[in-house]
Amino acid sequence: MSEHTYKFDVKMSCSGCSGAITRVLTKAKESGGVSEFEVSLEKQEVLVKSKESYDIIREKIAKTGKEIRSGVTIE
Amino acid sequence: MSEHTYKFDVKMSCSGCSGAITRVLTKAKESGGVSEFEVSLEKQEVLVKSKESYDIIREKIAKTGKEIRSGVTIE
Repeated sequence: MSEHTYKFDVKMSCSGCSGAITRVLTKAKESGGVSEFEVSLEKQEVLVKSKESYDIIREKIAKTGKEIRSGVTIE
Repeated sequence: MSEHTYKFDVKMSCSGCSGAITRVLTKAKESGGVSEFEVSLEKQEVLVKSKESYDIIREKIAKTGKEIRSGVTIE
């Protein structure tokens, strides 16, 4: 199964907000569901590279309770 | 099955942090898993009343990526 990169616009107000998403994605990386990721508080952006579907990754981020303004598959 | 009240000490830095937990618990309340809850940024405290086990509620909060410093069943 090929990998994709997904980009999400996520509302993050402080480093505690971005840290929460980082913690969740770090766990997902450890368990193999995510191969790479980047969380930027400044850009309000979460980039995720994964073999999983867009919906699965989106749901993982949604479970943090953070508001996802938009999301897109970029490659 | 009887209800219990659980109290968690959760690291929350801003209203975005507490809002994320509120969003997750609101969803849980809508789906019937939680009957009442209270999130206090000031006290760094999350109170949850539920028929579910301590572990299930703890996991729900943990999935937000927030650091849970401690948790206890208070009744």
